[in-house]
Amino acid sequence: MARKSSLSGFPEWLPQERLVELHVLDTLRRTFELHGFSSVETRAVETVGQLLRKGEIDKEVYAVSRLQEEESARSNGEDALALHFDLTVPFARYVVENAGHLAFPFRRYQIQKAWRGERPQEGRAREFTQADIDVVGDGSLPFRYDVELALVVIEALGGLPIPDFQLRINNRKLAEGFYRGIGLTDTAGVLRSIDKLEKIGPEKVAQLLREETGATDAQAEAALKLASIRTEDTSFVGLVRGLGVADPLLDEGLAELEQVIAEASKRAPGRVLADLSIARGLDYYTGTVYETVLVGHESLGSICSGGRYDALASKGNRTFPGVGLSIGVTRIVTRILSQGFAAASRQVPTAVLVTLANDDSWSSAQDVAAGLRSRGVPVEVAASAEKFGKQIKFADRRGIPFVWFTSEDGSHEVKDIRSGEQVAADPATWTPPAEDLWPAVSPQ
Amino acid sequence: MARKSSLSGFPEWLPQERLVELHVLDTLRRTFELHGFSSVETRAVETVGQLLRKGEIDKEVYAVSRLQEEESARSNGEDALALHFDLTVPFARYVVENAGHLAFPFRRYQIQKAWRGERPQEGRAREFTQADIDVVGDGSLPFRYDVELALVVIEALGGLPIPDFQLRINNRKLAEGFYRGIGLTDTAGVLRSIDKLEKIGPEKVAQLLREETGATDAQAEAALKLASIRTEDTSFVGLVRGLGVADPLLDEGLAELEQVIAEASKRAPGRVLADLSIARGLDYYTGTVYETVLVGHESLGSICSGGRYDALASKGNRTFPGVGLSIGVTRIVTRILSQGFAAASRQVPTAVLVTLANDDSWSSAQDVAAGLRSRGVPVEVAASAEKFGKQIKFADRRGIPFVWFTSEDGSHEVKDIRSGEQVAADPATWTPPAEDLWPAVSPQ
Repeated sequence: MARKSSLSGFPEWLPQERLVELHVLDTLRRTFELHGFSSVETRAVETVGQLLRKGEIDKEVYAVSRLQEEESARSNGEDALALHFDLTVPFARYVVENAGHLAFPFRRYQIQKAWRGERPQEGRAREFTQADIDVVGDGSLPFRYDVELALVVIEALGGLPIPDFQLRINNRKLAEGFYRGIGLTDTAGVLRSIDKLEKIGPEKVAQLLREETGATDAQAEAALKLASIRTEDTSFVGLVRGLGVADPLLDEGLAELEQVIAEASKRAPGRVLADLSIARGLDYYTGTVYETVLVGHESLGSICSGGRYDALASKGNRTFPGVGLSIGVTRIVTRILSQGFAAASRQVPTAVLVTLANDDSWSSAQDVAAGLRSRGVPVEVAASAEKFGKQIKFADRRGIPFVWFTSEDGSHEVKDIRSGEQVAADPATWTPPAEDLWPAVSPQ
Repeated sequence: MARKSSLSGFPEWLPQERLVELHVLDTLRRTFELHGFSSVETRAVETVGQLLRKGEIDKEVYAVSRLQEEESARSNGEDALALHFDLTVPFARYVVENAGHLAFPFRRYQIQKAWRGERPQEGRAREFTQADIDVVGDGSLPFRYDVELALVVIEALGGLPIPDFQLRINNRKLAEGFYRGIGLTDTAGVLRSIDKLEKIGPEKVAQLLREETGATDAQAEAALKLASIRTEDTSFVGLVRGLGVADPLLDEGLAELEQVIAEASKRAPGRVLADLSIARGLDYYTGTVYETVLVGHESLGSICSGGRYDALASKGNRTFPGVGLSIGVTRIVTRILSQGFAAASRQVPTAVLVTLANDDSWSSAQDVAAGLRSRGVPVEVAASAEKFGKQIKFADRRGIPFVWFTSEDGSHEVKDIRSGEQVAADPATWTPPAEDLWPAVSPQ
């Protein structure tokens, strides 16, 4: 992993590394589809106007324009194009544009690249792959989907070759109701301050709260007390109640978070944490918020985040509430590779190299290969009839476990070049052991 | 298919259309992997300098720059970035950068989007997916790979729900040797003129040949005679010989093309055509050239093209010859959808909706769902305990074939809502019929 990409922030994998990434992508896709999510892709570009609707992200966007377009003709306004920086904004547009063709609640997964012009570092690339799942309703969306989506991502992440992870969940209603209940009305301002807790510590957050939201010492202290609550079960409810704050929105948020934590802690003990400090900064969530850390790799940042939007999208007076999460595939794969958490059992798909006894046997070697492939065995055929030793070395160098020989009399043998064992074989029936059929990606 | 994309040239599919695209992508991937090709992805951007190395494509390129970058700081030179317009140029760079980590001959497939700022029309989008396979050697690459790659793409395309197709193959050595043999030295100029044959007809090509390459009437006639040769077997060899031209490069080209056609016509009769008019315009191929048409849809253009490069890439005095083909996935999928060649059997992955008898049964319904999923059955759980009629209607509207009921006494039944048949079922053993397990994409 000393290899550097030739363009900072744009990682590219070697074939054996790509196998690890493919394993991650295939695992996520299968889990999402087993849960009934439909695949959707959106175009890589959006209009700048669409991307900037939520503001404050303009510095990260890559603009796109035809190289040879006249400078004067280039549109610099809202119609100009830019690469999407996440998959939520494009998906919201897709839902609005195709609402008449979709069955709601609409469950979709979307696995695509996104681009941000941020300063690159490990865990933050300029080009990266996200795997998003969302459920979107037309007008309303039962709260149960907030619980379900936590279960789906726990199952999806649980299938990956990564260390222990923990989904940390909070609820905006709970936090905002609490702040309101103690007399702090600038709830967005309080959230923004609390969001900095991990970075700057409680004292500086208290100062921010006093200076920027007009909090008294007691109010700042209460807000920080709430943010200090972390429980792996539903005991957070009693701890919040113990703070003696009353507010209907707080009640609603507590009941919602309790449902998520109760079900998730029952099904995946230790995988979930009610963490009342989770704020998700500038994102416009309106209920549940999720973040996920790799235990022991907290500095990597969240590998899977999301939440509930009352209005993911809207069209006239029609609104589409949604709840969803986004898995940082590139962030996860980069860490798997840099830490050697997993590796592929070989670097090529090929299980068998069919050798050539002489140069005229290429066509009959293709027959052998076709027979094996028809039963799902990945095969390649040697391109020239070099000495067998050389052909075996070729297989060895590429990590191909089996080499096939056909004699002039038409008999066949197959050799496992790792053990050296060589046996008679019939191309119409022989199959490698299941563990050698395809490259396997397993934890190291 | 009356639906228009909201940005011309940037197609987006509905979930049931995306299933057709996924089927195409999965089929190609499986075929490539069965033939031992490794997956590689490259970043979406290249430096403009890299993309323009081969010239003449600058008008089609989308430049990329950070939106908020200072105009003065923006690099407009060779280091500026642009989206790749194909997968060959990025792959050539990847090979050079990673040569020390790759085992040659290196077989890779690469399925990614590419972008070109051309005027959109059916079959030509501004954002499109390509599926490329190439074999690259270090210094040399046996000719047999030219034969093999024709076989691989015939098998790959043969697995897709498309009408009959034909791979049309020519050889640059054959053409250039022939032109030289009749005394035409500007072989590139002759190729460029012959490339226009389908568009402007033989008389205008003859005129071009006379005006731009200095051909005599007899020379133009001979070049056009060569270009008129099309055979499904190796009989083209005799036809070319009958033109009475002698040249060592012509001999070499004839022998190469004969090998490809002999093997491919034997393995896939009717799928291959020696077509001596194929020129592949501005591409810098040096031997075999391939194009592919959908029979009856010739106006769509080639759905799979490629050829042999003596130097796909080079690094100092080291050269990497290659041979490869690129399948136009978006072009193919667009035609499949617009012509209704194939469709998905349902629009969602879900095979079973687990209903709720009452609102408290959601958690136990999740147990049923988990049991089914553990045996590979895609399942979703209803979000609220509406009347059963409503829950069934929900499944029907989404195209989910089976609905699951759990009684208060814990007994289970499953209903096929298409036939109305309802039977007792055990979540630990019940599986839908194989054809209902996942959405199937089949020819219509």
